[in-house]
Amino acid sequence: MRKLKLQELNRLSTEAFKEAEKLPIAIVLDNIRSMHNVGSIFRTADAFRCENIYLCGITAQPPHRDITKTALGADRSVQWQYYKKTTDAITDLKSRGYHIIGVEQTSSSVQLQSLNVPQKPIALIFGNEIDGIDTEVLELCDAWVEIPQAGTKHSLNVSVAAGIVLWHFASPRLSAVL
Amino acid sequence: MRKLKLQELNRLSTEAFKEAEKLPIAIVLDNIRSMHNVGSIFRTADAFRCENIYLCGITAQPPHRDITKTALGADRSVQWQYYKKTTDAITDLKSRGYHIIGVEQTSSSVQLQSLNVPQKPIALIFGNEIDGIDTEVLELCDAWVEIPQAGTKHSLNVSVAAGIVLWHFASPRLSAVL
Repeated sequence: MRKLKLQELNRLSTEAFKEAEKLPIAIVLDNIRSMHNVGSIFRTADAFRCENIYLCGITAQPPHRDITKTALGADRSVQWQYYKKTTDAITDLKSRGYHIIGVEQTSSSVQLQSLNVPQKPIALIFGNEIDGIDTEVLELCDAWVEIPQAGTKHSLNVSVAAGIVLWHFASPRLSAVL
Repeated sequence: MRKLKLQELNRLSTEAFKEAEKLPIAIVLDNIRSMHNVGSIFRTADAFRCENIYLCGITAQPPHRDITKTALGADRSVQWQYYKKTTDAITDLKSRGYHIIGVEQTSSSVQLQSLNVPQKPIALIFGNEIDGIDTEVLELCDAWVEIPQAGTKHSLNVSVAAGIVLWHFASPRLSAVL
């Protein structure tokens, strides 16, 4: 047993990533405050070959030193777009056939391990660190999902929650692109 | 559909958490540099009712403002211990019957979704942000697991990786304590 070197991991170059087949998973960030969280989500989106990140409202956009510091350059591989209004991003995604899933604890949420999604591209919405997803945005979702939790705190860190939810949806599909 | 209020989520008080049944999952942090990552892992360990965090080497210990800022107080609910040497923590865990799993990309790693674990308590080791798990520590592990990745970067952020791996092992067991 020995640790693998970077060159043994068969990672893509940034150029190869841009050309490569992506998983049909879009990420929508609704007013994320922390650039650490934005950078970390870029890094996860890169690892799971997600097709697009929609940065909305107050969510910061690359290039920015504090995003790159956490993204470690994944802000240059993963495609992204900025929308001033999150609802406009959702409306666009809906018109292009995406199934819209809000990651939020609501009266209609399904637990992550129990959510069934149709065979179409999905968009996963993650909300502000304090306020979660805006109510107006939540009302546009086709489904709501929550990560079951058994502790003292309201929720997980948003970049950790994004990692878990993206892993859940990406892992069964990753072998097709690896 | 409406967002749930904190009091509707049935979260535990810190006191109730300490008394509550935990999942038999220990977390070992081998020289984690960032207090943001330590705090975030405390918050995840709280959500998934993990029994203990072993903070080793240069990993910072609570109470510390920068840990609490990210842990949001989960550093007061989840039990933790400090070991100067990570190998001492592993030796102790082994003597108490834990199955030791290093989260690292090695020549012997199994992909997360394919790892079979025995019916005994598990300890999950997470390594330094740059260097990963120390080789001496890796050699003490019973198994090595990696999260399959299809992007440009070497690895995920360690608190995101911890979230995914903890979710993987905790989610089938959470219903027993919820």
